[in-house]
Amino acid sequence: MKNAVVLLSGGLDSATVLAMARSGGYVCHALSFAYGQKHDIELKAAEQVARALGAVEHKILALDLSAIGGSALTDLHMAVPEQPSEGIPITYVPARNTVFLAVALGWAEVLGVQDIFIGVNAVDYSGYPDCRPEFIAAFERLANLATRAGVEGRRFRIHAPLQALSKANIIRRGIELGVDYALTVSCYQADNAGRACGRCDSCRLRRLGFAEAGVTDPTQYR
Amino acid sequence: MKNAVVLLSGGLDSATVLAMARSGGYVCHALSFAYGQKHDIELKAAEQVARALGAVEHKILALDLSAIGGSALTDLHMAVPEQPSEGIPITYVPARNTVFLAVALGWAEVLGVQDIFIGVNAVDYSGYPDCRPEFIAAFERLANLATRAGVEGRRFRIHAPLQALSKANIIRRGIELGVDYALTVSCYQADNAGRACGRCDSCRLRRLGFAEAGVTDPTQYR
Repeated sequence: MKNAVVLLSGGLDSATVLAMARSGGYVCHALSFAYGQKHDIELKAAEQVARALGAVEHKILALDLSAIGGSALTDLHMAVPEQPSEGIPITYVPARNTVFLAVALGWAEVLGVQDIFIGVNAVDYSGYPDCRPEFIAAFERLANLATRAGVEGRRFRIHAPLQALSKANIIRRGIELGVDYALTVSCYQADNAGRACGRCDSCRLRRLGFAEAGVTDPTQYR
Repeated sequence: MKNAVVLLSGGLDSATVLAMARSGGYVCHALSFAYGQKHDIELKAAEQVARALGAVEHKILALDLSAIGGSALTDLHMAVPEQPSEGIPITYVPARNTVFLAVALGWAEVLGVQDIFIGVNAVDYSGYPDCRPEFIAAFERLANLATRAGVEGRRFRIHAPLQALSKANIIRRGIELGVDYALTVSCYQADNAGRACGRCDSCRLRRLGFAEAGVTDPTQYR
């Protein structure tokens, strides 16, 4: 029996990754974070996605990254931009994927699991440095030095199966695997009912993805 | 003005590192974690150490690693061993230093700080994989791929100045720098008054260190 830890945000990408891991035969332990993001509707979405796609368990860990601030996703005084910007946008949360992967690694080690899945994507993405293939490769290398399992010769693998896919192809793959994207919330500033703004970077990439894939966009916009 | 983020546990090693960073001219931002450790007296110790050694601020972040379990330091059902063991002991907390360094990295990036100090030591230590020089080097490499600062060419440095020192030499260096070790708590199972068991691996290494350094051990044993 192959087991995996799957990072699950409640958004479109990580839902697709969970479906891919399940379709690859993995028993999936889903992991989400209450990290101080402005809305927690995405955590409710993650719960629904975990159930719908047959994760064997779903853990939500609290780690308040708003205590260190520095991002429009965690700082109530910084507005989410509604126009594309040059360079790395202020929605970047410093070291977020490093923190999430680190905790996933700890949980994987406790579970005796060697496979960790993450939904990073470096094609239709916001330019976050911790979504790039070289970051994932460096984390995998670190994981095998950081842990008892690594020392004892059991290798961790960090799977980022969306890495080279366009948003449209991610959606096409998810549809094939039966992902119900109506359950997912990608918007950086969704309201309490999970309705999307339609204007932030995440909404923009998602909307274009559905259009390019020729799939009806199930997102509820407000 | 040089600034640094310093990981501070409340124990002997990280107190010495804070003193070394201060003596090297760094303005120090101390970071501790309420990570689900069995006693929080070490966090009170960290507060006192941060103040005594002139940290400019001290942040304590909550991240409940007991939710993933797997260590005698976080699992109430696992006893702290009182005899040395072969291999990596059960007091090892899976991926702890990876998680702590990841959060330190995020805070450093928000502060615009490039120097991170950690009190790992690979001489008189418990054999934890995430205390070894190759782990620290791999994390530094990761840090420079994971972040906006790294992308923009500002390099992070992970300082582990105790790496190659014996416990006795760590203590000698700390005494030179005016560290009051009576403020520190190293014991894995200290009581609410901060009194040490004298029997766990951490107590054993600390006690031997004071003896070898020829310094009176200020630890209160119960």
